[in-house]
Amino acid sequence: MRLSRYFMPILRDAPKEAEIVSHRLMLRAGMIRQEAAGIYAWLPLGLKVLNNITKIVREEQDRAGAIELLMPTIQLADLWRESGRYDAYGKEMLRIKDRRDREMLYGPTNEEMITEIFRANVRSHKDLPKNLYHIQWKFRDEVRPRFGVMRSREFLMKDAYSFDIDQASAKTSYNRMFVAYLRTFARLGLKAIPMQADTGPIGGDLSHEFIILAKTGESEVFGHNDYLDFETPDADVDFDDAAGLQAIVDRWTSLYAATEEKHDVAAFEALPEDRRFAARGIEVGHIFYFGTKYSEPMKAYVTGPDGKDVPVHMGSYGIGPSRLAAAIIEAGHDDAGIIWPDAVAPFRVGLVNLKPGDSACDAACEDLYAKLKGLGLDVLYDDTDDRAGAKFATMDLIGLPWRLVVGPKGLASGVVELKRRGSSAPEQLSAESALAALSR
Amino acid sequence: MRLSRYFMPILRDAPKEAEIVSHRLMLRAGMIRQEAAGIYAWLPLGLKVLNNITKIVREEQDRAGAIELLMPTIQLADLWRESGRYDAYGKEMLRIKDRRDREMLYGPTNEEMITEIFRANVRSHKDLPKNLYHIQWKFRDEVRPRFGVMRSREFLMKDAYSFDIDQASAKTSYNRMFVAYLRTFARLGLKAIPMQADTGPIGGDLSHEFIILAKTGESEVFGHNDYLDFETPDADVDFDDAAGLQAIVDRWTSLYAATEEKHDVAAFEALPEDRRFAARGIEVGHIFYFGTKYSEPMKAYVTGPDGKDVPVHMGSYGIGPSRLAAAIIEAGHDDAGIIWPDAVAPFRVGLVNLKPGDSACDAACEDLYAKLKGLGLDVLYDDTDDRAGAKFATMDLIGLPWRLVVGPKGLASGVVELKRRGSSAPEQLSAESALAALSR
Repeated sequence: MRLSRYFMPILRDAPKEAEIVSHRLMLRAGMIRQEAAGIYAWLPLGLKVLNNITKIVREEQDRAGAIELLMPTIQLADLWRESGRYDAYGKEMLRIKDRRDREMLYGPTNEEMITEIFRANVRSHKDLPKNLYHIQWKFRDEVRPRFGVMRSREFLMKDAYSFDIDQASAKTSYNRMFVAYLRTFARLGLKAIPMQADTGPIGGDLSHEFIILAKTGESEVFGHNDYLDFETPDADVDFDDAAGLQAIVDRWTSLYAATEEKHDVAAFEALPEDRRFAARGIEVGHIFYFGTKYSEPMKAYVTGPDGKDVPVHMGSYGIGPSRLAAAIIEAGHDDAGIIWPDAVAPFRVGLVNLKPGDSACDAACEDLYAKLKGLGLDVLYDDTDDRAGAKFATMDLIGLPWRLVVGPKGLASGVVELKRRGSSAPEQLSAESALAALSR
Repeated sequence: MRLSRYFMPILRDAPKEAEIVSHRLMLRAGMIRQEAAGIYAWLPLGLKVLNNITKIVREEQDRAGAIELLMPTIQLADLWRESGRYDAYGKEMLRIKDRRDREMLYGPTNEEMITEIFRANVRSHKDLPKNLYHIQWKFRDEVRPRFGVMRSREFLMKDAYSFDIDQASAKTSYNRMFVAYLRTFARLGLKAIPMQADTGPIGGDLSHEFIILAKTGESEVFGHNDYLDFETPDADVDFDDAAGLQAIVDRWTSLYAATEEKHDVAAFEALPEDRRFAARGIEVGHIFYFGTKYSEPMKAYVTGPDGKDVPVHMGSYGIGPSRLAAAIIEAGHDDAGIIWPDAVAPFRVGLVNLKPGDSACDAACEDLYAKLKGLGLDVLYDDTDDRAGAKFATMDLIGLPWRLVVGPKGLASGVVELKRRGSSAPEQLSAESALAALSR
C-alpha cells in the first residue's frame, strides 16, 4: 500500500481523553476513531490488525472442531424471557422497540439464541458433541465506557457454545476450548495464563479466565513463574483425544495462579519467593461450563442412547478481538509507539523513501516494493513528501516489525537500511541482502 | 468437512412462509434461520456462501483502489441532524435510546458518518481522490420484511464513499466503481446490466442500478440483448486511466436498458425485435454521485490548489452481499435445488459414501477426501448413515458444483461416479481420473 493513497490519519499529540497507553496509541496511529461514547470506527490500519487477530482466532476454533455460523445483532426480548435473563440483565442491555413496538435488544451475548437454534435442529445424542461459534458485534451499555476499545460498548466477540450429552463429555468440550485458547493467545504473541474465575451473569460452576501480563494491566494477578515457560500445545494436538486434552489442562492448572478476587494469600506465600509473580494482568478470554442452566428452561433436549430425553450440557467460550487489539498494545509498546507481534502487525514492512522525486530513490523503492509484494509480504510504502524525522516517527508509532529505508546517500554507496522494531541498531546492507533477510 | 460433524439442518419440506424460491431453498438447505421478522441467523452453509461473496466484493473494491475501514453499527442521532436526514428518514430508521437517554440509531447507511470521519482528517486536495468502504451489518425497519434475506431488516452491505475535489474527478471515481461492479458481478457468475436509476433518499443526479436477469425477479426490466454478450473488463484494467474507464462506462451505457420506473416504451420498441428483452430482474448494486449534498451542510471542505476551501464532491456505492446470496439462487436453481456458480459454492465437491462401515468404501473415501483437500479443494464428505436417495437429494439441494459418489459396486469394478451439478449424466471413471478432472 502506498501511504500517499492510504487513509492513516496520524495524530502528533496524545489526545487528552485517553487514559491508558493502548487507547492513546490507537488514536495517535489512526487505528480507531470515537463515534460516540464507547463506540468506535476502525480506520484502515486498525481494521487490518482486527482482521489479523480474528483470522487466528477463527483458525484455532476450526482446528478444535468448532463450526462457524453467524447470528444477527438484534434479538427478540421474548427469547431472553425464556431463560429468565431479560429482566435480570439490567441496564447493560440495550433495549430497542421497532416500528411495530416489538421488544428487541442488541445482543450482549448469545446463549439464548444459540440454544434456540440448537433445540430447533438437533434431536439426538448421535449429533453430539457440537460446538457452534460466531464472530459478531455485540453491545453492552456500560455505565462508564472508557479505555478505548478495551472497554467499549460496541465490541467484536468470538463466542462459541458447546453441546454435550452429559457432564463428562461437556468437560472434554471445555478442555478443547481451553487448549484452543492456549494456542490462540500464543499465536497472537501473548503469554496467557488460565486462572479460575467467577462466572457472573453467564452462570455455571466451572470457569477460567485467560490473563496476559502487562505492566499497564487493569487488575492485579498472582501466580507461579513456571507458567511463563510452559510450552504451548502443538498444532497437531489431537482434539479427539479426551485424555490427552485433560493432561494438557491438568498441567496448565497445576500451579498457583489467581486473580485478585480469587487470591489466596497463604497459598501464594507458600511458593518459593523466586518462583512467584505479583503483576498486572488483562483478561483476554473467558470460558464457562454451565451445564443445563439454559437447556432446561429453554427445553433444549436430545434423545439419549437409552431413548430418554435429556437436557444438553452446555458451555460458552468468549474472546474479544477488538479488546485484544488494545491488550496486545498494552503488552507491547515503548515510548515511541506500538511494537506489534509479527502475526498481528498491519503490515510486515514499512518501506521509507527518504527523497521522493529523486529518480534513483524512486526506482530503488519501486523495485523493492514490487519484490517484497512478490514475496507475499504486506508492505506500507511511505512515498510522501514528509520530512525524514516525521517518517521515522510515524513508522515507530505504528509499530511495523521491519523498517526498510532508502535514501540517496545510502544508494550512492550501494546500501539500504534495515531495522527491526524494538531492536537497537539499524543495519546497512545491499537491497538484495535486505530482501533475503525479509524473506526469512 | 465431514457431514457427521457439521451443522447443516436440511428441511425435507418447503416452509410455508417462504414466497420465493431462494427463500425456500435457503431454508431447506439449512443456510439461514429466521430469528425475528426480517432478521436471520446465517447457519454454517449460508455463512460460507456469504463469505465467498464478500471476499470477491472486497477484492474488486481493493483492486479499484478503495480503502477498507469499518464503521460501527450504532450511530448518534445528532450526526444525522447535521445532514437533515434524521427527521426525513422516517420509520425505516431503527431509533434507540441508551441508558443515558442519548438518541442513537442503528445505521441504515453511512453517508453522514463517513463524511464526519473524512472532514476530521482530510484537509487538502492533495489527499484526494479517496474512496473509503466498509462491509458492515445495517438495519432498515421495513414495514413488511419478506422474501428471506432478499428484503430483510438486518442485512450486510458493502458501502463505499468517494471524495473528490470537483465534479470531473468525481465522475472518474464513479466510473471506477462502475467498472469494479461489472467485474464483481461477473466473478460472482452473474450477468449484471447497469441501468439508469432514481436516487431516492440518498439524493443526487447520477445513479445506476445493476440488475441481473432471473425468471423469478422482483421487477420488470427492458433492454438490448447485446448487453448479455458484452465482455467484462479484464483484471488488469487500469483504474488510474480516466479515459479508459470512461470508454468502458460509455460502452456499457450505449444501448437501451431500463427498469420499469424509467422505461421508455418508444425507445424500446425502436430496437429490432430480436435484439430486445423484456424480462424479470433483481437489483444487486446501486451507485450514486450526489456532489456536495452532504459535504456542504456537514462542512466537509478541503483546500483546493488555489488555497480556497471547497466542499468535496461525493458518491456512494452499495452492494448487499446478504441479498446477493438470494439473488444468485434466483438466477441459478432447478427443481431439485440450488446450482451454485463455482466462485460462490460453499464447497467445491460433495463426496458421497454410499456404504459407511464398508471397509473398502470407507478407505476409498478417506483417501479421496485427503487427496481432494490436498489439492486445495473444499470438500463436504457425506459419511452419514442416510439412505443413498436422501444423500443424493441433499447434494442436489445444496447445489455443490461436483458430486463424487463412492459405492461398493463401483469400487468392485474400479470406478467412482462423478457428476457436475446441473448437467445430465454422471460419469463412471477411476478414482485417479476423477481426481485429475476435479483438479482442473
